[in-house]
Amino acid sequence: MFDLVIRHGTIATAADIMKCDIGIQNGKITALGTNLTPGTTEIDASDRLILPGGIDAHCHLAEPMTGNLVMADDFYSGTVAAACGGNTTIVPFARQFKGQSLTDAVAYARQQAAGKAIIDYALHPIISDPTPEVLENELPSLIKAGYTSFKIYMTYEDLKLNDYEILSVLALARREGALTMVHAENNDCLTWMIVQLEEAGKILPRYHATSRPMVVEREATHRAISLSELVDVPILIVHVSGREAIEQIKWAQNRGLRLYAETCPQYLFLTEEDLGEKLDDSFAGAKCVCSPPPRDKKNQEAVWEGLLNGTFQIFSSDHAPFRYNDPQGKKIKGTNASFQYIPNGVPGIETRLPLLFSEGVNKQRMDVHQFVTLTATNPAKLYGLYPQKGTITIGSDADLVIWNTKREVTITNAMLHHDVDYTPYEGMQIQGYPETTISRGEVIWQEGEVKAQPGRGNFLPCGLSSLAQPKPVFKHS
Amino acid sequence: MFDLVIRHGTIATAADIMKCDIGIQNGKITALGTNLTPGTTEIDASDRLILPGGIDAHCHLAEPMTGNLVMADDFYSGTVAAACGGNTTIVPFARQFKGQSLTDAVAYARQQAAGKAIIDYALHPIISDPTPEVLENELPSLIKAGYTSFKIYMTYEDLKLNDYEILSVLALARREGALTMVHAENNDCLTWMIVQLEEAGKILPRYHATSRPMVVEREATHRAISLSELVDVPILIVHVSGREAIEQIKWAQNRGLRLYAETCPQYLFLTEEDLGEKLDDSFAGAKCVCSPPPRDKKNQEAVWEGLLNGTFQIFSSDHAPFRYNDPQGKKIKGTNASFQYIPNGVPGIETRLPLLFSEGVNKQRMDVHQFVTLTATNPAKLYGLYPQKGTITIGSDADLVIWNTKREVTITNAMLHHDVDYTPYEGMQIQGYPETTISRGEVIWQEGEVKAQPGRGNFLPCGLSSLAQPKPVFKHS
Amino acid sequence: MFDLVIRHGTIATAADIMKCDIGIQNGKITALGTNLTPGTTEIDASDRLILPGGIDAHCHLAEPMTGNLVMADDFYSGTVAAACGGNTTIVPFARQFKGQSLTDAVAYARQQAAGKAIIDYALHPIISDPTPEVLENELPSLIKAGYTSFKIYMTYEDLKLNDYEILSVLALARREGALTMVHAENNDCLTWMIVQLEEAGKILPRYHATSRPMVVEREATHRAISLSELVDVPILIVHVSGREAIEQIKWAQNRGLRLYAETCPQYLFLTEEDLGEKLDDSFAGAKCVCSPPPRDKKNQEAVWEGLLNGTFQIFSSDHAPFRYNDPQGKKIKGTNASFQYIPNGVPGIETRLPLLFSEGVNKQRMDVHQFVTLTATNPAKLYGLYPQKGTITIGSDADLVIWNTKREVTITNAMLHHDVDYTPYEGMQIQGYPETTISRGEVIWQEGEVKAQPGRGNFLPCGLSSLAQPKPVFKHS
Amino acid sequence: MFDLVIRHGTIATAADIMKCDIGIQNGKITALGTNLTPGTTEIDASDRLILPGGIDAHCHLAEPMTGNLVMADDFYSGTVAAACGGNTTIVPFARQFKGQSLTDAVAYARQQAAGKAIIDYALHPIISDPTPEVLENELPSLIKAGYTSFKIYMTYEDLKLNDYEILSVLALARREGALTMVHAENNDCLTWMIVQLEEAGKILPRYHATSRPMVVEREATHRAISLSELVDVPILIVHVSGREAIEQIKWAQNRGLRLYAETCPQYLFLTEEDLGEKLDDSFAGAKCVCSPPPRDKKNQEAVWEGLLNGTFQIFSSDHAPFRYNDPQGKKIKGTNASFQYIPNGVPGIETRLPLLFSEGVNKQRMDVHQFVTLTATNPAKLYGLYPQKGTITIGSDADLVIWNTKREVTITNAMLHHDVDYTPYEGMQIQGYPETTISRGEVIWQEGEVKAQPGRGNFLPCGLSSLAQPKPVFKHS
Repeated sequence: MFDLVIRHGTIATAADIMKCDIGIQNGKITALGTNLTPGTTEIDASDRLILPGGIDAHCHLAEPMTGNLVMADDFYSGTVAAACGGNTTIVPFARQFKGQSLTDAVAYARQQAAGKAIIDYALHPIISDPTPEVLENELPSLIKAGYTSFKIYMTYEDLKLNDYEILSVLALARREGALTMVHAENNDCLTWMIVQLEEAGKILPRYHATSRPMVVEREATHRAISLSELVDVPILIVHVSGREAIEQIKWAQNRGLRLYAETCPQYLFLTEEDLGEKLDDSFAGAKCVCSPPPRDKKNQEAVWEGLLNGTFQIFSSDHAPFRYNDPQGKKIKGTNASFQYIPNGVPGIETRLPLLFSEGVNKQRMDVHQFVTLTATNPAKLYGLYPQKGTITIGSDADLVIWNTKREVTITNAMLHHDVDYTPYEGMQIQGYPETTISRGEVIWQEGEVKAQPGRGNFLPCGLSSLAQPKPVFKHS
Repeated sequence: MFDLVIRHGTIATAADIMKCDIGIQNGKITALGTNLTPGTTEIDASDRLILPGGIDAHCHLAEPMTGNLVMADDFYSGTVAAACGGNTTIVPFARQFKGQSLTDAVAYARQQAAGKAIIDYALHPIISDPTPEVLENELPSLIKAGYTSFKIYMTYEDLKLNDYEILSVLALARREGALTMVHAENNDCLTWMIVQLEEAGKILPRYHATSRPMVVEREATHRAISLSELVDVPILIVHVSGREAIEQIKWAQNRGLRLYAETCPQYLFLTEEDLGEKLDDSFAGAKCVCSPPPRDKKNQEAVWEGLLNGTFQIFSSDHAPFRYNDPQGKKIKGTNASFQYIPNGVPGIETRLPLLFSEGVNKQRMDVHQFVTLTATNPAKLYGLYPQKGTITIGSDADLVIWNTKREVTITNAMLHHDVDYTPYEGMQIQGYPETTISRGEVIWQEGEVKAQPGRGNFLPCGLSSLAQPKPVFKHS
Repeated sequence: MFDLVIRHGTIATAADIMKCDIGIQNGKITALGTNLTPGTTEIDASDRLILPGGIDAHCHLAEPMTGNLVMADDFYSGTVAAACGGNTTIVPFARQFKGQSLTDAVAYARQQAAGKAIIDYALHPIISDPTPEVLENELPSLIKAGYTSFKIYMTYEDLKLNDYEILSVLALARREGALTMVHAENNDCLTWMIVQLEEAGKILPRYHATSRPMVVEREATHRAISLSELVDVPILIVHVSGREAIEQIKWAQNRGLRLYAETCPQYLFLTEEDLGEKLDDSFAGAKCVCSPPPRDKKNQEAVWEGLLNGTFQIFSSDHAPFRYNDPQGKKIKGTNASFQYIPNGVPGIETRLPLLFSEGVNKQRMDVHQFVTLTATNPAKLYGLYPQKGTITIGSDADLVIWNTKREVTITNAMLHHDVDYTPYEGMQIQGYPETTISRGEVIWQEGEVKAQPGRGNFLPCGLSSLAQPKPVFKHS
Repeated sequence: MFDLVIRHGTIATAADIMKCDIGIQNGKITALGTNLTPGTTEIDASDRLILPGGIDAHCHLAEPMTGNLVMADDFYSGTVAAACGGNTTIVPFARQFKGQSLTDAVAYARQQAAGKAIIDYALHPIISDPTPEVLENELPSLIKAGYTSFKIYMTYEDLKLNDYEILSVLALARREGALTMVHAENNDCLTWMIVQLEEAGKILPRYHATSRPMVVEREATHRAISLSELVDVPILIVHVSGREAIEQIKWAQNRGLRLYAETCPQYLFLTEEDLGEKLDDSFAGAKCVCSPPPRDKKNQEAVWEGLLNGTFQIFSSDHAPFRYNDPQGKKIKGTNASFQYIPNGVPGIETRLPLLFSEGVNKQRMDVHQFVTLTATNPAKLYGLYPQKGTITIGSDADLVIWNTKREVTITNAMLHHDVDYTPYEGMQIQGYPETTISRGEVIWQEGEVKAQPGRGNFLPCGLSSLAQPKPVFKHS
């Protein structure tokens, strides 16, 4: 007797497509077949597409901030929004402050999540202070405890590492088999640009894009590649925004380096013009201030190409929630201060999958297998969650999303479940939307209703990345 | 009640890995799960790897030849060898002679296969005479009848098309949604080289390689790309041998052209030195005469790279069976004639999968998913056989191969089932071998024994290539 | 005592600039210095720029044509136009018809020139029929007699060679140290396009450009490179029109091949829109029909870049003079026939240098040394005329042009000296113009007046190309 | 009446070759011609090659050092060695210490030169402390005073600038039209490598090469390109050592950036093996310790290619003279200390030209014009010394070198004139050597004898680089 049987759906995985029933017991998929025996509960998915639940492996929730700044989403609103947008797993960050114990930073994030998350989650520590203590004691223990990937920054005053520190982190990652994510922008370049712009009185939000041109990201991308090449360890370049950085990545991949890369919806659907003023609001562009900034239409096309030809392995939201009309959000320094004080980030945890499905799959840029690969299977493989997560197969968690591929939706912030007061995609018309989200066999989002209890989400200790290791010997027992 | 249940195996597909039972009814996979109900027959696959049956989409069997030349394998010996080497589907050729009706050529190949094949087969027509009749009447009918891919040659006097003819074929392919395979070598260049070499008295088999240097293949590859670009239609470059051709293909792919490419075992495991003399036999190199010729170690590495980074979508044998000690085979003109008279081709239908599994998967160059993709799933998708063939999923044909991934084997011609009197890989030590081959639920090769009746193999009408079409809209009903 | 002293000019060569007097005796430059002793004649060149006389190494004059077609310029009008446009040497073609002796073809061209040319000339034979007789007997003799470069075509029914023939010509060129010029367009491709266009009723002049898109030229360029690589001999690709062909050339050069390339004014100053209809004349575009056709603005920029970065070594006119309103010219088939019957070619022998000087040097795209290199020194070095021609140095022929770099001119056909009834550059405003042209110490164009006698031009036997040989040992005696 | 006439020589410039006499008055070339009137002094140069005097635009003489370290050559020994090696101009450095006034640093270098130099010299300030005072007051004045190029370092603790400082310097260079030379190595990377190597006990001189692999130079090269691209100003990458850096430079040049590059003899003639131990001297490799380090044979070939195809505009010595057996030289920390304490640099001011002439011109890799361009004309144009220096033309300084192109020489340190106790090229056999060096019409080196008085060399104020400006309008009066 199955706990749940989903009947008659069309199931797509990273490689395959099949029309059959799914049998679920104890939160796991235990049967795929036709005419399965009855389940305690049954769902009819005729005419529906069933995909593995999305994994959003780059999002920011309830991170501790400096000053009065506050992230708008905690693990409850964040995971609800994620689930309603077709996700069943997230991997947000545990941010270390300089001087802080990394273990403490991780513990803090775990506390934030506990009792709140409605879907499963893993965590990437952010290393901002790679002291010998952190590298030699804390990180090895954390990796063993399931924190097998971490993020470093090449910019932001309170986060950035210099090249020597990056090498130290990479050497540790190599020794332990961990995966390092890199935010690649040249901090000196953008700081110098900010000074030039401010001296010229150019402080409106749109100058944020001017201050971080493509070359600033391209340089740091090349440098990150070089550092990983020196240490001989794979890295993952996060939130790549355009052609010149993509060319560096492809060049490195073509030379045989194991280099991974991620992009995000803002680089497909926004441009630097979205940082401009609006008729009634000269500060409106602040809503779309993020780093790297959105580029232009031609760069959007280059990002699409990179998604389709395999340069990018993963598509994440980089959800970074700050309220617009909020002195603890985008307006923390008011609306007359320089762009450099605007908190960086756009919300997107709920819109990531519908946007890509509509513009990617339904507009025939990619097939449904590429969609699943980029949004679920590869994130799981990259971050050591596969095959528990990221696919639909016997033995995997029953993390499933039933899509209505024909449903037409106009995105409005009102329909979203995050605690941010805007969405950059307001008014955009899309086709295809998640109708039902199932986490470990439990329906948590259905018929427009959230059905999950806060805290039902579990922490996921990650294994070592299967993509970041030497090519694995096949093991079958 | 299942007809057959395979229990406890580890199943790998192009994207996934799972440990479960497979239930088979009426030749189809109808259930995947744990603790499946009993089957009439049961196989215990504990400690074994189960892969989709291989598809060898480029092999030559029983083709009509000119003069006294005879292909060593017919559809019986050829499909037996294929099955014993882990294949459940082949796609050999139906060769048109100049002046011949293409429909007749296809009918001839169907006759050769009928009553003999033990596994399923489709056919690629070879178009050597694209008359208006062939293009306007025969080909459209044949495509409708399931011959959706065809091969053309840029070399060989009796097969080659000129650029104008190629454009005509490509234009037809575009109109009908068919896929064209191209043998790319510049015929004038190699002919000119042959004249120079023969004038200099250089006629030993090894000069075959000298007469067709990399630039000869690279030029034709660039030209084929250009012709497909002019017509705006996908093509597939077959049996690519080395770096310079790969660079052209990657360049075209990076420019967004839908260009597909195939390589073969001889370009991974042989070099031009294998065309050289042996102590006791100055003609021995004739065994490895094929076109394009094997290159050198560095080119082998480039071919491996191309397999791993996605430049190649498909890995085939190009099995072209001619006996060595045979006046109707390699020695048709004796052993003192110029290399140009040696029939081109090497046997390899049975060794293709074990070689790639051993040197690719077991030596950790690729993972098992890449192996399945290159040898089964992509061939099925490229040639319109998916999802009936090429994967393990509900509704697919139960074409399965059970591998013993640890078995150590020394390749000898004695152990092979083709009718050729040599293998180029004699003495090579490999690890991993197909133990049981199942076609449509029927065990046809097990415990070293062929269990199939001649003629049980069915002709497979192919759908249009899913990869060669505009990116498909997802369709779920 | 000098025959002629030119005083106070600013002299520029390929590398240097100096302000001094030039002393000339017996047609040679014998002194450069300040305060030279008096000359029989003196010219004051204060405020003027003195450059080596231009060499137009690609122009068509008085070639024998098929049918009623007639070239508008003979060696008199052609060399007068050249001289008035700042040239002191030309290298037109001696065209071989299929079946004709190449020696006869050269003799015919020599007859056309004799008694008419007012400046010195060499000749490039056009090889359209590379029989053994031509290759083994005629060509070696002709090379010894000073015809050291020749042109071959990959297109035009009555001129084109197939790849095998090209290889034969290149092998001869390699053996003899001669230089082969290649017109690179894929004939089958453009023929196929013509058929498609005509079937669709698209016969206006502008479809000439449609029928020969960039890919047609790129493919042939790659093929020509490949053929020269197989034979290991330098070649020169003539009249390159745009980016994709340039990329092939640069790729080959970067791989160390000795590959030379030429472009022409029509690829800097015309676009395919110039092949379009005009309000009052639907056939007007015929004036700009040439092959390869002009491309678009972006390709113009790529051609400029190639001139500046050294991809191109030489800038020629490809002057091919056919009258517009003439049943023996552009309208040979009337104005309602398909574009394919329009004689190919644009006039430009007189405008080549002023156009490049104005838009290149005066608009600061290039410096004056690059101008001299591209238009005089490199042509002389490439075709074995250096140091007799192409520079200003002791011992060289006194072939000098005095430029007024500030003079503003509006180009009209009325001011030109060719026998064509139009110029494609009608109305274009430029700055800088040749004021005085001196050939072997004799003033032949001054103050708007032609001062030379027909026939004063000498035939120049060419040495072997210094650029097409192995890097020369320095020889100083 | 000429002061000096050199008769019957073969004169080569960057573009031309001519056989004539040279007339010299007041240190300037005033006549080129045949049969010049007599000179007070005459030199017969029959059978000899006359080239413009070499310009060594990258050499270190009498720089102030920290600690006990002492440069072995002052402006006397250094300029004598230069003159004997065929140079008539040098451009050494004026090194600023952190905290020091740049004007003082320049004054110090001027004092070192005054009374000692026997050939003319300019100076490149080294900017190690770009304070606002230096950038806003000192540098603009110094540029006006003829110090129009300066060097910055991305490595060496006491010299390196961070990216922000580099941007400040580049912005100033852009505003003033000055040219910035960049030493490109990533300091964090090599420091990290040094730590790893020392921790592993690998301290022999040869580990200097291990500590600075190609990727360390490539990264910094890409970064320098990016910084110059952000500011939009030309830069010159000095002493490029191998393929990967060259590829970055070529990539930038192909994108249209005005990027210049230099290489040196040590990258053509030494490899990292020269940093190894010798039988009797485990420290011997210290002689060849320089940065970037010499690479391997394949990189040497890449450097040759870069010289020949125009990627490099300039070939300098980077003469950095430290005595080997000297506690104030290479052995400053004894022979048991880590490689990191060995002073960096190899001597080469006297051998630069003979090495390149022998292996470049006489071995037919390059022609004599390329030699002159790389070693004299381009250095003069790049650093604002043209046409006073760097060529042989009317009005230029009579800086001439008469070469015996056939003379065979075995290089020994005994024959050289520097004050260093070794040459890295000991025992190398070359062909071609400077026989007579003439500076401003005065013979300073002839028949193996130095004939010049200390202090006869003049300081040369440099104009703005003609290559680093926007393409210049031609100016003729």
